[in-house]
Amino acid sequence: MPTGGNFDGDLGTFAAFEVIQAVQAAKIQTRHPLEMAVWAHEESTAFGIGTAASRIVAGDLQAGDMDRVWNGMKRGDAIKRIAGNPDQIETAIRGKGAWHSYVELHIEQGGTLDKAKVPIGIVEGIVAIHRYDVVIEGQVNHAGTTPMNERHDAMVAAAQLTIAVRDVASRRQGRQVGTVGRIEIEPNSPNVIPGRATLSVEFRDLSEQVLRELGDAVKARGAEIAKETGTTITFTLASTNVPAIASSGVQAAIGRAAAAANLNTMRLPSGAGHDAQQIAKLCPMGMIFVPSVGGISHSPKELTTWEACANGANVLLRTVLDLDQRDSI
Amino acid sequence: MPTGGNFDGDLGTFAAFEVIQAVQAAKIQTRHPLEMAVWAHEESTAFGIGTAASRIVAGDLQAGDMDRVWNGMKRGDAIKRIAGNPDQIETAIRGKGAWHSYVELHIEQGGTLDKAKVPIGIVEGIVAIHRYDVVIEGQVNHAGTTPMNERHDAMVAAAQLTIAVRDVASRRQGRQVGTVGRIEIEPNSPNVIPGRATLSVEFRDLSEQVLRELGDAVKARGAEIAKETGTTITFTLASTNVPAIASSGVQAAIGRAAAAANLNTMRLPSGAGHDAQQIAKLCPMGMIFVPSVGGISHSPKELTTWEACANGANVLLRTVLDLDQRDSI
Repeated sequence: MPTGGNFDGDLGTFAAFEVIQAVQAAKIQTRHPLEMAVWAHEESTAFGIGTAASRIVAGDLQAGDMDRVWNGMKRGDAIKRIAGNPDQIETAIRGKGAWHSYVELHIEQGGTLDKAKVPIGIVEGIVAIHRYDVVIEGQVNHAGTTPMNERHDAMVAAAQLTIAVRDVASRRQGRQVGTVGRIEIEPNSPNVIPGRATLSVEFRDLSEQVLRELGDAVKARGAEIAKETGTTITFTLASTNVPAIASSGVQAAIGRAAAAANLNTMRLPSGAGHDAQQIAKLCPMGMIFVPSVGGISHSPKELTTWEACANGANVLLRTVLDLDQRDSI
Repeated sequence: MPTGGNFDGDLGTFAAFEVIQAVQAAKIQTRHPLEMAVWAHEESTAFGIGTAASRIVAGDLQAGDMDRVWNGMKRGDAIKRIAGNPDQIETAIRGKGAWHSYVELHIEQGGTLDKAKVPIGIVEGIVAIHRYDVVIEGQVNHAGTTPMNERHDAMVAAAQLTIAVRDVASRRQGRQVGTVGRIEIEPNSPNVIPGRATLSVEFRDLSEQVLRELGDAVKARGAEIAKETGTTITFTLASTNVPAIASSGVQAAIGRAAAAANLNTMRLPSGAGHDAQQIAKLCPMGMIFVPSVGGISHSPKELTTWEACANGANVLLRTVLDLDQRDSI
């Protein structure tokens, strides 16, 4: 993604390599097939689809998916450019029960573990996301000649809606979050009252019921803002992810692995999306988190110490070997 | 300018042609030289300079002005492209007293005349503009993993500042206006907390004292917002225009001309900038306004009826002939 960091995704990939190498070096014969996956395009940057590869493996393949266009390129052609075959994309799909279990190591991306000085996080589940595309239509006009009380200023309405999103997400108990991360206004000139604003509104929580209530609350506030500013505000639910609950059996295995490595643990939800949420449709899933310094992620300042990376890889290896010993999770 | 209308500027130019043609057709020998000007680049779209041509004629020519770059083009080269000579640009400067008087016809661009159903506006003066470039620095972070109370969200701060500008401009008596017309946020992605916002804040009023007070008020509120949101907010006064007061003698001549044409008048300030504000430095200046339907301007929906255009041209002609009869204004 634009301005991303060096640990988001990369740590899990390199640690999985290390696990495979360690198992081979120790000449361990696992009871189950041991497989690693490097998932392409977990971020939704390309073609507007997040967890793009694991989504297909989990069977979520829609008609026209290969015809989407991004940066002047068809998705099918993009897959050809990286030596894939879009005409046989459905051969990547795996069925329910394809794997015994799935474990993913990732940086936390939030600051909970770093603040608590706990080296290993056991993920309880991955939050669902409801993202709305919001269009505000006001009236383009001259910024000098239009009295304050005769304006239909799309930027003023967008500003009020941004504050409403912050307030709606902040004012109830719980770990839900709400963000306006994108805005474009037209014509975007200092001497012209903005006539149109488009913005993204995103809510995340483990409960879909909470997400619906947050969406309803901001839409109700949007209706008031539209009336007050003389604009129209349209909400489109542009994308949704269902929450993915981590298997209690895999969580327990991670706990045992961390204990064996003398590492403290805490349980926490994942506020970020991960490929694990797709694979949760196919088999028992769990995730190991390691601390992000200062909770900074999706930024060049993203940092996880080498010691923390090694702790994560160590717990990943031990978790895999623990799970391998169990016939069912 | 982008998405401008068909009457802003054009009406004054075509009406001046009509005046010259009418004077010639009637074989009127004026007592003073009669000159018309078609001012290039009144809007600040190109090279960020408003009233670009009349500004030079009034003697406001800075070192390096011809080296400014816009759209990959130097200003001097742009002047060559329209057959001008940037090396002799100073020959365009006229001195104080170069003209006996100056009259400009323009659409109002606001809705005052249209609402009052008055065909001719006599401009009292052109408001001054203080424009600030504002930079808000927050902290880029993951929109899913960063709790609401740990964010340094530049978009939330920009939203609060936008509302502060509206409130500061609305809550005092007077005709002052305040606008946030431009905003860019970074990285501008739905799933990332914005780390940086740049926006324009513009205030307009006939009184420079009022403008200073508005700027001080929004900067004070900005300091509170920065503290509350954990961001830094920097204000730079990027451009200022001084107010230009219309000559009472030219205002009186417009009044007599309208009365002779049986057209009602009202006096009003101009919220928009005009070339007349530059020429006010050289000689007595006045402006005639005609109604903008619905007060819409800087928009493709900008409209002034043909009858209103003809009224304006008629009053312009009569004002010119009236002024020509007077030795001093």
